[in-house]
Amino acid sequence: MSQYKVKPAVPKGTRDFLPAELSRRKYLMDTIAKVYHQFGFREIATPVMERMETLSGKYGEEGDRLLFRILNSGDYLKDTPDQLLADKNSKSLAAHIAEKGLRYDLTVPLARYVVQHQAELEFPFRRYHIGPVWRADRPQKGRYQEFYQCDADVVGSSSLWNEVELLLIYRRAFEELGFRAAEHQIVIRLNHRQLINALAQLLEMPEKFGTLIILLDKLDKAGWDVIERELAEAGFNRGQLEIIRRFCNAGNGAADEAFAELEALVGHTEEGKKALHELRFMYNAFTEAGGTGLRIDPSLMRGLDYYTGMIVEVGNPQLFSGSLGGGGRYDNLTELFGGQNMSGVGISFGIERIYDLMEELNLFPVRLGSEIRILWVPRDTEAEAYTFARVQECRSRGIAAEMFLGNVKKQKHLSYTEAKQIPWLVEVGSDETAGGLFRLRNTGNRQTSGPHSFEDLISLIA
Amino acid sequence: MSQYKVKPAVPKGTRDFLPAELSRRKYLMDTIAKVYHQFGFREIATPVMERMETLSGKYGEEGDRLLFRILNSGDYLKDTPDQLLADKNSKSLAAHIAEKGLRYDLTVPLARYVVQHQAELEFPFRRYHIGPVWRADRPQKGRYQEFYQCDADVVGSSSLWNEVELLLIYRRAFEELGFRAAEHQIVIRLNHRQLINALAQLLEMPEKFGTLIILLDKLDKAGWDVIERELAEAGFNRGQLEIIRRFCNAGNGAADEAFAELEALVGHTEEGKKALHELRFMYNAFTEAGGTGLRIDPSLMRGLDYYTGMIVEVGNPQLFSGSLGGGGRYDNLTELFGGQNMSGVGISFGIERIYDLMEELNLFPVRLGSEIRILWVPRDTEAEAYTFARVQECRSRGIAAEMFLGNVKKQKHLSYTEAKQIPWLVEVGSDETAGGLFRLRNTGNRQTSGPHSFEDLISLIA
Repeated sequence: MSQYKVKPAVPKGTRDFLPAELSRRKYLMDTIAKVYHQFGFREIATPVMERMETLSGKYGEEGDRLLFRILNSGDYLKDTPDQLLADKNSKSLAAHIAEKGLRYDLTVPLARYVVQHQAELEFPFRRYHIGPVWRADRPQKGRYQEFYQCDADVVGSSSLWNEVELLLIYRRAFEELGFRAAEHQIVIRLNHRQLINALAQLLEMPEKFGTLIILLDKLDKAGWDVIERELAEAGFNRGQLEIIRRFCNAGNGAADEAFAELEALVGHTEEGKKALHELRFMYNAFTEAGGTGLRIDPSLMRGLDYYTGMIVEVGNPQLFSGSLGGGGRYDNLTELFGGQNMSGVGISFGIERIYDLMEELNLFPVRLGSEIRILWVPRDTEAEAYTFARVQECRSRGIAAEMFLGNVKKQKHLSYTEAKQIPWLVEVGSDETAGGLFRLRNTGNRQTSGPHSFEDLISLIA
Repeated sequence: MSQYKVKPAVPKGTRDFLPAELSRRKYLMDTIAKVYHQFGFREIATPVMERMETLSGKYGEEGDRLLFRILNSGDYLKDTPDQLLADKNSKSLAAHIAEKGLRYDLTVPLARYVVQHQAELEFPFRRYHIGPVWRADRPQKGRYQEFYQCDADVVGSSSLWNEVELLLIYRRAFEELGFRAAEHQIVIRLNHRQLINALAQLLEMPEKFGTLIILLDKLDKAGWDVIERELAEAGFNRGQLEIIRRFCNAGNGAADEAFAELEALVGHTEEGKKALHELRFMYNAFTEAGGTGLRIDPSLMRGLDYYTGMIVEVGNPQLFSGSLGGGGRYDNLTELFGGQNMSGVGISFGIERIYDLMEELNLFPVRLGSEIRILWVPRDTEAEAYTFARVQECRSRGIAAEMFLGNVKKQKHLSYTEAKQIPWLVEVGSDETAGGLFRLRNTGNRQTSGPHSFEDLISLIA
């Protein structure tokens, strides 16, 4: 080992997790996983590294720039043409010397996975996947280069019941996470790609379709006045602007008003009719299953050219300005990898943001099950063997227990129980080893009770 | 998105996991994590990426060669001296253009973590960490470039009770994993670095110490005759060879014989005395706590210059020729990162190998809790809404349930239950929706019972 000192630091944009934070993160992920599981989804895993061929060109130019590439192993320069090195072109050299990369999301790996394992999978294929992804974004508060995604998708079924189930998963998961108070309720915004197509058709400006989507995507943050001006600048005339405004505003009222207004606007077009039929189906089935908080929002775009049917996004603007998750139906996921065209539909939870929000709202349970129940503190060396036998007895009864091996004279066991959130503490000295009776300290309220027999102690802490 | 077809494949040496395999892997990891937790260890997480400064020089020259490096983001060639490119030296260029790498193990990240977060941690610090690591090794059967490690360490306590606890964790974890039959019992081999030092002192050839360790490390596989010849070639004389042979053979009998023989050989040296005292303490405390299968094995080297006290390795040569885990005490973990010198002791489970072995021995439970309990199959579109309400009712009672949305006419639901290992199946048509009575199929024995009311059905499957 080299002997010079290295500054202990993680790469920018990445994080260590201390035990207390990690146990809350695990609680969050496990809670969502449990709901996914209840709904018939099973977990898969894919490698952290993918071939660059798999990743490149899937996320647009900006996405390509944000991919982390892994240097080829061994003498990676051996077969590199000298000219390529002389050019000093980082991009073209990378294609030669770095043929693997870190996954950028869990969706492209899913597409590859489904095609690669097609023969081994049973369709409709329902999978969930929770794991880290990497993006070479500029790190800033709440944005990391290594962060977790949490996706569920159904591949190979075009039934709208899948949509209904995914909407119900959102509802159920947020409830289980503790978003129960009226002011914490999560709103699910629902739209349909073909509804937007119908609007475009109505406007009769197909060449402006991209611009329209980009601008409407900013509506939430910028407000109608700003967007209206920009739309006008983009060439939409007064009549068209009025249609767009009515279309977007249709989502402001109750669902039946939204449906009536949209019916009037685009119900006569083929795509509009289909979209409204599907949205009605989802809305009704969701509501009949007891779901609440679903809002039809024709202005929801999610920036993506990618969705072909349902578009969904969840959040609560009063609590947090961004999205807490989203998804939709897409039809050409597997095509790129030579798979037969299979329809897919999926959702995702923005768990990094949900985590921060739950911290802020104090929604994490005080006790997480990941705690150690009791710390046994031998007052001196003579008491160690006796104490250890008690610790082992706790463990054999399924109680997570620990013998304190730090500095007892300096009372370090007190800060230790606090740091590890251990609710109970027992000190063991000659009295205890002789009499077998123990004084039990509740580290929360600092009250001590006892002396108790070992059996009484167990029943008090279990 | 680019429109050419990409071959769906993972990088060599990496793996996808199908749901059934993943749920067994999770069961394995969760079982060990549960035991760690029972013993007072808490989980941490560190980034997958570390700074190259943190990783380089920690694993020897061979290790450095096996590190995966991550290309710097952006125009990584911009500030690279032209000469460096012209030299075409892969190693020196890498230092300029790839300043991050994938972690190679969980131990160096632990050292960095402990120093970096020293002020936030309470000592003794007991942590476990289960996660993937990466090595650019040549892939072969059972050896991957991306694989999992599963470590528990105590940092900042020199008490031998830590060693005892780690030995008991091995015993308990393998029991919980189902290694219970006599022929499956795992042997824990125990040695002490200072015992080896004492042997070296006895041999009076300090300059040959490295050679001695390397050769004895091969003893298991090569046998004494081969190693004796190589030791003789290395310059050890007849008397020395006899001492080495006795030293190694001391581990072949019962513990008390081992202790007696080692006492006679090295008990008079200071290091020998200390090592034997510590080994006796561990052995006795382990045995008193009900532990079995612990063998004193002075020939155990674990190749590493790294350990300063206990050395341990677990396995069962009858079942599997390699190691299933190992560890020991080390004294200068945090020094490299400028931390005060803290003693550490830790163990690790070779979970990739344990997984393969458990598959081979059929030790995984048939039911893993990750299964979906029941598949509801609507026979036609008319039955869907009714069926879906039943599915939701199951879920609200905590039963993982699913509505089949594939091709019912082609009887695809039968292969579907098989693939997803769903134990129960109900078909719903007009009779069921009218009468509310259901015939329940046990997909294991293919027996159908009923008709049952919904409540009866629930009690049958819950």
